[in-house]
Amino acid sequence: MSAPVSGGDRLSAVRAGMAADGIDALVLRPSPDFRFLGGRGDGFLVVTMDGAAETADPRPYLPPGVRRVGVDPEMRVRELFGLAVDAELVPAAQVLAPLRLRKEPYEVAMVERAALAADSVLACAPELSWFGATERAMATRLRVLALEAGCEEVLSVRVTAGPGTAAPGSAPSDRVINPGDALLVSLSARWDGYCAEVARVFAVAEPPEDYDAVYSVVVAARHAGMAAARPGVPAAAVAAAVAQAVDDSGYGRFAAPGAGRGVGLGSDEGPRLRADDDTPLEAGMVLCLEPAIYVPDLFGARVADIVACTESGPRPLTTAPSSLPVLER
Amino acid sequence: MSAPVSGGDRLSAVRAGMAADGIDALVLRPSPDFRFLGGRGDGFLVVTMDGAAETADPRPYLPPGVRRVGVDPEMRVRELFGLAVDAELVPAAQVLAPLRLRKEPYEVAMVERAALAADSVLACAPELSWFGATERAMATRLRVLALEAGCEEVLSVRVTAGPGTAAPGSAPSDRVINPGDALLVSLSARWDGYCAEVARVFAVAEPPEDYDAVYSVVVAARHAGMAAARPGVPAAAVAAAVAQAVDDSGYGRFAAPGAGRGVGLGSDEGPRLRADDDTPLEAGMVLCLEPAIYVPDLFGARVADIVACTESGPRPLTTAPSSLPVLER
Repeated sequence: MSAPVSGGDRLSAVRAGMAADGIDALVLRPSPDFRFLGGRGDGFLVVTMDGAAETADPRPYLPPGVRRVGVDPEMRVRELFGLAVDAELVPAAQVLAPLRLRKEPYEVAMVERAALAADSVLACAPELSWFGATERAMATRLRVLALEAGCEEVLSVRVTAGPGTAAPGSAPSDRVINPGDALLVSLSARWDGYCAEVARVFAVAEPPEDYDAVYSVVVAARHAGMAAARPGVPAAAVAAAVAQAVDDSGYGRFAAPGAGRGVGLGSDEGPRLRADDDTPLEAGMVLCLEPAIYVPDLFGARVADIVACTESGPRPLTTAPSSLPVLER
Repeated sequence: MSAPVSGGDRLSAVRAGMAADGIDALVLRPSPDFRFLGGRGDGFLVVTMDGAAETADPRPYLPPGVRRVGVDPEMRVRELFGLAVDAELVPAAQVLAPLRLRKEPYEVAMVERAALAADSVLACAPELSWFGATERAMATRLRVLALEAGCEEVLSVRVTAGPGTAAPGSAPSDRVINPGDALLVSLSARWDGYCAEVARVFAVAEPPEDYDAVYSVVVAARHAGMAAARPGVPAAAVAAAVAQAVDDSGYGRFAAPGAGRGVGLGSDEGPRLRADDDTPLEAGMVLCLEPAIYVPDLFGARVADIVACTESGPRPLTTAPSSLPVLER
């Protein structure tokens, strides 16, 4: 089992990856990869086989005759045009993504801090005035609470009420939140570089019919996925455990695809908790488990929790309540 | 004098620009250009000579044999790689930037709304508790106030105190704000698509020596630049008026380069208020005027205000106070 790539070793591990892929230089911008390699400012980070520089203008740092450059996937096209380099451009992620799979202990602690901050904001939900407010207004309220809780950046806030909860990914609208609504809330935030997402489900005053049951299935699926997240098993096994739990309940045809993904410096990184990802789980990986059931035109339920893989098994960093929380007027 | 490009005419004006530049397709992402052409969602907008589509996957919409594609400068490199198109890629801005110079009346009203929101937040400054707070904490406070004021997005908040005010562009730090400090505060925000930036200068309890005088020069320079912003004169003339006012005061060698830029769907667009921009000003242009003086190791003063060019002359949308505001304990 490989050790996570720690501070001083990162550059040498990156150069080994560059050599293997025939990449002469990496050009990174403020992004998870940039931060992973110690980038601190708002310029470019250029890594070559014999140097590394943070600079406002990467061009002088590219070796003469450079043939292949790994560029930051988060770089803007205008910055790429600004490079004006005559070389093959490939995604830097092919070198960096494998090195970022396993986290050092301090990195796990940082994700945990982000997760706890996000969770603490959602834990305030019962104290807020939801009735008659719009999704958009409540999303802004949660965004403000997250900033006040000390989050460095709020990556996304989703508030969806009523039948809209069955349409995953919809942005907060001007729909008013009413008694009897299902309510889906998620918050993705960054804390000193590291990301976490937490999603919670509520009922407003009174749950819609069958919503309690669907919530229980999602929580059971989360539990099954968490239990499966052990070193040595493939990422796909976690997805399978989640899918099995939903299938067993009879809600299988309404299950969301996949069961989550890794989190760290990026809010969406490897491994993928999907049937097609056979990456073996290792101690030091941190996952966002997010089982969901979407019943068209009725409602959806999704919880997202963070779990760290350790040698001795999964360690949950957040945990959704086991029974459906009901928001009282 | 050209009319601003209005809703229905935009696509035809864009196609004329594409034809002139030999561009077969534009691929845009959520960005000012995207919004200018009516993009509403979070996918791609593809414009060809005979169609326009908003889509999650632009590839099927690219004409066969496409030779030259204008790509959104705000697009991410990972999205560009995802296109996997064998064509020459050029910045879409070469077609769109000229069309976005002049605003329609409703667009001027939207920038004004953003400017008033930003200004109203900075107008709250005297009521906040600055003494002993950090730059970072106050920046967060202002960010929250801007969201609560209804801004769709806060693009940047700068709070700098003491000698750091002489280093333009520095991010808010953990430095504590003390009596006797110069204080520079700026807020850039978006309101329903349109952007504005407002910057204000304060003294904490008591101005540093000569700070009053420097503030007066910056305000006079802002006034001179505003007065110069008339249809028919080149953008460079506004920069010249600002530079002249600072030179006349004897602070010329401490003047920041340039006097500002256009604002609209982008927070930083044409024309450039610089000596090298001879774009003629036209009614419908909206400018952010931002004269500044930075005296190394001592202090800096910068105000930013928004002005609309109209047939009958400049119309200020915001106005910094004419005398230096002093924040009392």
